[in-house]
Amino acid sequence: MSTDRTTSYGGSTTTRTERDTMGEIEVPAGRYWGAQTQRSLEHFDIGRDTFVWGRPVVRGLGLLKKAAAQANRDLGLLPDEIADAVVRAADEVAQGDFDDHFPLVVFQTGSGTQSNMNTNEVVANRAIEILGGELGSKDPVHPNDHVNRSQSSNDTFPTAVHVAVALELTERLFPAVDGLVAALDAKAEELGDVVKVGRTHLQDATPVTLGQEIGAWSGQLREAWRDVRRSGDRVLQLAIGGTAVGTGLNAPEAFGPKVAEHLSAETGLEFRQADNLFVQLAAHDGLVAVSSALRTLAGGLMKLANDVRWLASGPRTGIGELRIPENEPGSSIMPGKVNPTQSEAMTMVVTRVFGNDATVGFAGTQGNFQLNVFTPVMAHGVLESIRLLADACRSFTEHCVVGLEADRDRIAEHLEADLMLVTALAPHIGYDHAAAIAKQAHRDGLTLREAAVASGHVSEDDYDRWVDPEAMTRPD
Amino acid sequence: MSTDRTTSYGGSTTTRTERDTMGEIEVPAGRYWGAQTQRSLEHFDIGRDTFVWGRPVVRGLGLLKKAAAQANRDLGLLPDEIADAVVRAADEVAQGDFDDHFPLVVFQTGSGTQSNMNTNEVVANRAIEILGGELGSKDPVHPNDHVNRSQSSNDTFPTAVHVAVALELTERLFPAVDGLVAALDAKAEELGDVVKVGRTHLQDATPVTLGQEIGAWSGQLREAWRDVRRSGDRVLQLAIGGTAVGTGLNAPEAFGPKVAEHLSAETGLEFRQADNLFVQLAAHDGLVAVSSALRTLAGGLMKLANDVRWLASGPRTGIGELRIPENEPGSSIMPGKVNPTQSEAMTMVVTRVFGNDATVGFAGTQGNFQLNVFTPVMAHGVLESIRLLADACRSFTEHCVVGLEADRDRIAEHLEADLMLVTALAPHIGYDHAAAIAKQAHRDGLTLREAAVASGHVSEDDYDRWVDPEAMTRPD
Amino acid sequence: MSTDRTTSYGGSTTTRTERDTMGEIEVPAGRYWGAQTQRSLEHFDIGRDTFVWGRPVVRGLGLLKKAAAQANRDLGLLPDEIADAVVRAADEVAQGDFDDHFPLVVFQTGSGTQSNMNTNEVVANRAIEILGGELGSKDPVHPNDHVNRSQSSNDTFPTAVHVAVALELTERLFPAVDGLVAALDAKAEELGDVVKVGRTHLQDATPVTLGQEIGAWSGQLREAWRDVRRSGDRVLQLAIGGTAVGTGLNAPEAFGPKVAEHLSAETGLEFRQADNLFVQLAAHDGLVAVSSALRTLAGGLMKLANDVRWLASGPRTGIGELRIPENEPGSSIMPGKVNPTQSEAMTMVVTRVFGNDATVGFAGTQGNFQLNVFTPVMAHGVLESIRLLADACRSFTEHCVVGLEADRDRIAEHLEADLMLVTALAPHIGYDHAAAIAKQAHRDGLTLREAAVASGHVSEDDYDRWVDPEAMTRPD
Amino acid sequence: MSTDRTTSYGGSTTTRTERDTMGEIEVPAGRYWGAQTQRSLEHFDIGRDTFVWGRPVVRGLGLLKKAAAQANRDLGLLPDEIADAVVRAADEVAQGDFDDHFPLVVFQTGSGTQSNMNTNEVVANRAIEILGGELGSKDPVHPNDHVNRSQSSNDTFPTAVHVAVALELTERLFPAVDGLVAALDAKAEELGDVVKVGRTHLQDATPVTLGQEIGAWSGQLREAWRDVRRSGDRVLQLAIGGTAVGTGLNAPEAFGPKVAEHLSAETGLEFRQADNLFVQLAAHDGLVAVSSALRTLAGGLMKLANDVRWLASGPRTGIGELRIPENEPGSSIMPGKVNPTQSEAMTMVVTRVFGNDATVGFAGTQGNFQLNVFTPVMAHGVLESIRLLADACRSFTEHCVVGLEADRDRIAEHLEADLMLVTALAPHIGYDHAAAIAKQAHRDGLTLREAAVASGHVSEDDYDRWVDPEAMTRPD
Repeated sequence: MSTDRTTSYGGSTTTRTERDTMGEIEVPAGRYWGAQTQRSLEHFDIGRDTFVWGRPVVRGLGLLKKAAAQANRDLGLLPDEIADAVVRAADEVAQGDFDDHFPLVVFQTGSGTQSNMNTNEVVANRAIEILGGELGSKDPVHPNDHVNRSQSSNDTFPTAVHVAVALELTERLFPAVDGLVAALDAKAEELGDVVKVGRTHLQDATPVTLGQEIGAWSGQLREAWRDVRRSGDRVLQLAIGGTAVGTGLNAPEAFGPKVAEHLSAETGLEFRQADNLFVQLAAHDGLVAVSSALRTLAGGLMKLANDVRWLASGPRTGIGELRIPENEPGSSIMPGKVNPTQSEAMTMVVTRVFGNDATVGFAGTQGNFQLNVFTPVMAHGVLESIRLLADACRSFTEHCVVGLEADRDRIAEHLEADLMLVTALAPHIGYDHAAAIAKQAHRDGLTLREAAVASGHVSEDDYDRWVDPEAMTRPD
Repeated sequence: MSTDRTTSYGGSTTTRTERDTMGEIEVPAGRYWGAQTQRSLEHFDIGRDTFVWGRPVVRGLGLLKKAAAQANRDLGLLPDEIADAVVRAADEVAQGDFDDHFPLVVFQTGSGTQSNMNTNEVVANRAIEILGGELGSKDPVHPNDHVNRSQSSNDTFPTAVHVAVALELTERLFPAVDGLVAALDAKAEELGDVVKVGRTHLQDATPVTLGQEIGAWSGQLREAWRDVRRSGDRVLQLAIGGTAVGTGLNAPEAFGPKVAEHLSAETGLEFRQADNLFVQLAAHDGLVAVSSALRTLAGGLMKLANDVRWLASGPRTGIGELRIPENEPGSSIMPGKVNPTQSEAMTMVVTRVFGNDATVGFAGTQGNFQLNVFTPVMAHGVLESIRLLADACRSFTEHCVVGLEADRDRIAEHLEADLMLVTALAPHIGYDHAAAIAKQAHRDGLTLREAAVASGHVSEDDYDRWVDPEAMTRPD
Repeated sequence: MSTDRTTSYGGSTTTRTERDTMGEIEVPAGRYWGAQTQRSLEHFDIGRDTFVWGRPVVRGLGLLKKAAAQANRDLGLLPDEIADAVVRAADEVAQGDFDDHFPLVVFQTGSGTQSNMNTNEVVANRAIEILGGELGSKDPVHPNDHVNRSQSSNDTFPTAVHVAVALELTERLFPAVDGLVAALDAKAEELGDVVKVGRTHLQDATPVTLGQEIGAWSGQLREAWRDVRRSGDRVLQLAIGGTAVGTGLNAPEAFGPKVAEHLSAETGLEFRQADNLFVQLAAHDGLVAVSSALRTLAGGLMKLANDVRWLASGPRTGIGELRIPENEPGSSIMPGKVNPTQSEAMTMVVTRVFGNDATVGFAGTQGNFQLNVFTPVMAHGVLESIRLLADACRSFTEHCVVGLEADRDRIAEHLEADLMLVTALAPHIGYDHAAAIAKQAHRDGLTLREAAVASGHVSEDDYDRWVDPEAMTRPD
Repeated sequence: MSTDRTTSYGGSTTTRTERDTMGEIEVPAGRYWGAQTQRSLEHFDIGRDTFVWGRPVVRGLGLLKKAAAQANRDLGLLPDEIADAVVRAADEVAQGDFDDHFPLVVFQTGSGTQSNMNTNEVVANRAIEILGGELGSKDPVHPNDHVNRSQSSNDTFPTAVHVAVALELTERLFPAVDGLVAALDAKAEELGDVVKVGRTHLQDATPVTLGQEIGAWSGQLREAWRDVRRSGDRVLQLAIGGTAVGTGLNAPEAFGPKVAEHLSAETGLEFRQADNLFVQLAAHDGLVAVSSALRTLAGGLMKLANDVRWLASGPRTGIGELRIPENEPGSSIMPGKVNPTQSEAMTMVVTRVFGNDATVGFAGTQGNFQLNVFTPVMAHGVLESIRLLADACRSFTEHCVVGLEADRDRIAEHLEADLMLVTALAPHIGYDHAAAIAKQAHRDGLTLREAAVASGHVSEDDYDRWVDPEAMTRPD
């Protein structure tokens, strides 16, 4: 690759003339994109700092163009020489060699046409270069007639987005959540025998083990997780082959299935052409389904992060049953303070994921006729949520979960004080008598044992036999 | 049943003394509820007009108490006489004989304890009555020790809610959506051959058939629908047997599975005790999952309702390709106006379902430790969404879909005018030439055929052979 | 009033023929509504249990029709006799005499036309009755030509909704929030001198007084409150006079301002015709603004309710610095348990208000051209939020705030243990030395004083002079 | 500035030892940050690609530290030499000279402590450098004892965020919205006389002028705009002076007001210390209020963007009354297609703003006791919304609004066809007769004039006198 490729397009002083159906336009000399990318760059200066498409979408577009060229070659729709050059160029795009040549932002045309054309243009120019031609000449490789052959933005962009989402789920999110669940399970195993106060309504309740408490966190995540996986199956369905409106005009019937095959071979995921291509263009409910499954997962993470920080609250005037790692000084004014910062980062991520889901859900309703033109913002929301959840899960695992410790003294002290052990008496003496004992203990500051014996309904022996906190953590 | 039972509890002048662990309290004489219901009634006067629990939840509570008494009897935990009376009383509650005796609102204790106790009290008093005892005496049937035997609110209330949601989905929503999908499919069949303009970005695009357009609506709904069903499986998992904190304290291990069996036998649905009972109390992600699946379904309904009203817009200065039934005068000032009111009701329902989902999703994150205390508001949101979606689907089917008609003249006129038929030329003459023809036609007000021939790239014969709108609705 | 009027319309066996531009239709004999109401009743069976318009909207419609008739009389557009009868009939509607004659639900035509016509029909029939005519005859009073004179649904329904919202804010919500703020301020005064641990990140921090802590609750509410009031000013702007599309066709220019005057005189609120009537029809941003202000208020209430329940958590193994009233037994299985149920009801209300706001915000974006047809669902959401917030504030005030007590022993014990008192040393010995002291105390289980003296940087006298918790609650 | 400063911190090979209360840590040699920044960098690798704080927040932090040093100097709390160096260093940070030295992301500790310390560390090291000391030595300038003097993260970070938001509103959003409103007003003026069909319920309605239609867009934005400005007043209130928990511990009472004065002098905005500092730490309702006002503005922008694209729909089979600029080719497959891409970018931005608002609103509820630890994610959401709305408004103005043209022929043709002109007859012949005429015309495909005259209720002369579309755009 020439060093030109890494020159910032802002600083470029020389230009090349590119041309599309609207006429000529100047493009920075060192850039492989063409006229339509340049027009989008000039007309959509919206959120440029943070909303330029990143790796996952560019990779998805590259993979898609590669598979499309392979399918076109299979079907005899592209000469081998051109197909080979396009395959090689698209593969380089997929690998990340041309990320700097994808300057467009999320907020562009709602079909993603401009990013599809950006890909067509970069791949075409790079293929032209491979074949010894001149950048911008469209000869011997034309961005529409060759790279986009048998395709429309309306089917390719959603397809590339599905590929991106499926890969991000598989490669980024799954391992991160698996890691968190495994770390929790290991911690539940490690601390499983500790019997402690259960809490409902924030109030002292009957006992649980720390293993049960931690296991409920991983259990909730595991179920949410299963739903994310299931929703992920929806993005394995691809719009490819539908072309402009779902009918498949200008594409042979075999094209879509072949593209799906090539994509599957390339990625190891089981992509397939969708049953109803009209639906894939007119709506993006696969993305909506993934987004809402991520939201449920996020909800479980909020519960986990909140429980951890409350159980670690104090150190002296809170609950203080867990100790979290001291990763950094907590306060710029209060010396020696340690804060549950991993929980805070996690819960902030959760609120962001909820916001992304609100965006995706709203956008998902706004399709009209044969197309929903909110694809880019929906793709962005889903991919951002995946990225943030994966990062936050890894961070929380490494910097919080693995270092969690139980304060066994405090836990024992709390268990000793718990008036709701009285519940074990209810089957023996009835709910009403048991209630009177608990209330008496509370009012007079007695231990439960003292109040029970004083009530006359329970002997000391009965009490010791009936009130066994460890036994209370199992069904009768 | 005595006529007392239908007396409004507001107007009752005589009272009966009921008693709980906090002491005595007066209850309207004609009411079967007890002290705890009465306390809730007095302490939670919030949204009384519209937030009193309705049929589905009372039915769920009745069914649950019946199954619990059956299970307790099976396990020898209740004497037969008492168990039988409780079963009969609970069955009457499930049937709706005592709906007026469930006066509590959604906004109460977050565990639903008060509605659980309301059920315990009504069932106990009715069982006492059946057994010839005195209302309020707790003899021979005690609301806690007998009706609530082996249970806690923390497992019963979520269980009753799951039962209610599963039944409402099955009995109310499924038939309504099935009916809508079937009506759309029938309409797609009826009008399937009509070839018309496709539209992307609200702009004229390549042709589709009306069958494809309508089929995309039902196709989207069908997929959303599948997700609702799948999410519904999550509510077949029941918390029962977990009692207060998930450990199952005071309940035999066989209790929960037995309750699930009795509920399944009663309803024909496949309920089962959840794998992890701690998770079922600490979170209500089954409700979150159902809610978000309903949101996706709602999104598809918004797309449908919007497409219908836009296609029917006019009658003279809009798109006007569909005619909707004239159900009522449209305007109080504009005589003779007909409006797409079924679409409007539907889209309003959609925004309400989105709001409910926001409530449910938010509430779902707010659990602490062993309990999420937002169960009532989550249950309410999900049940309201089910009800509204079912009603709206039925209304839209009957009063809109079955009466839809195509304005074939207008459709033909539009198709004739569509410049995007040019797309069929692109594989033959290239994208750039084709674009020039379309632009020329647009600029000069020509037909596409005129512009094509004038371009010199296409003969009249070629044009007629290549541009065949009907053929364009199928893949190459 | 005839007793007919209270007969349920479901049970009516005799009917009367009513007529509109679509033809004849049978209406229950005892009902004052006419043909268009009946058509809506038959076509919109959606959420009937809980979505029939209630008092506030019917009152708003009645007040509007009364004021409109007064304005038409002022302008010579209605004969006195007819105007007088309409004014009297509309006033009866406003008073609530005819609530049973408003059977329509929220989910109808999105302009509220059917509820406007319901009002026109009931008022017309009642005015006909007053004037000795025959119900359904439209003689001598016609629902469109007389009652709806100079009006369209498109301006009257939003106007009636604004009147309803303004009155509900003023009469229902304002007193409830005022009462809560006053109760908190009184409690802050009562307990203001108690010095206690402050908490940031859930961790022990430098001290505050209970007065400061409670004052922050009321302070936050007071600011949110100010925003609700300010947003409420937007609904004092009325659409009236805009008629069908905002131009005011068929209404004299003076009509709108006159209606606003009459409404102001009637209600004591300062209604006025909006500056831009087109905006009032095409969007309902006044409702959006009120809704989001209510959401902010709800956020403050969640903070308050959460703080209260956490401070009252325990009683023995939580924070336990506050005691809340014991209003009811907390658990059906754990005898003697007391739960923070008012906080739970409040926080559930908050999640519902958030959901309503999501509905209103979404619906608010969906207008097209001269009309936003989501008025009914937006009105419903805002009015429900007002009602719930008002009820919840009153309940929380009466059943929680006024009974709050401080556990002074526990508070003192916590303060004594607080390591963050070390912050008072930082200005004297530097942040780094102070941090070392706090860490030492934490690690070795020392009191802060012990660790400080042991460090060699602080003498016992210095410590006692510098570390004065009460003084630490004020700026240097 | 040394060139070191622009070296990527990833690529740095040499390091410097920095130290905090947790011990020593290596920092890249060319970076000015210290130990706490480095710890955060290592512990919070979450969303690094797009969530590093950008210019507005770094500028806000720089301005705040400058003003704080000025206030400390005024109050004699910092020696002049140190104060001067800190002021100069902080000013350089505010100017953007050190942006590469702010590597932290949004998802960190929820108080923003780490970004506050990042600022303290960079400013301290740069001040040390100015005074000839050694980086990392904390001598003669200590990040806590000097740069953070009289401050805590809990008051400084929210203060810096308020400064950032106020400046972004004033400098970025206000001009962009002003520009859009002005462009719309100019367009309304330019096309104001065109009389056209009004549309309600998407159906033909009574006429409006294009000036009225466009004026409703700008009118709605202007009102939303006013609310944004008003909400912006809330962020002029600053938390500064509250220090750790709101009490102002370790800060003189005059400190906060002095900082506000210096900030006002520097920026020209009217900052002031908040009335209740406890509220400013415990909640961030100023941000919530701004966010929801931005949401309402976004709603108006969606209405505008949707109306524009629908009015421009076609070109031949839609409404087609407006023409939008042809900025770029619309389709990769359909040659010559032009799409309403600016509307699409705008509406996607709107859904993103709604999502951000969901995040901010949710996060705003989650404070506990003396602190809400969701400040960073709330700040990020508000600032992102401001940026996107500003960019999108500018883009929409320049690339769409200024180029809008009316298709006068099509508009006239539509007006001619509009059956709702019949409304002008209603005051003369009554609603019922008028309705019959419109229905007749619709059914038989007549012009309204033909049907009116045929009805016998209207003479040709009457018709021409009564039905004057231009006159119908004004009140009677």
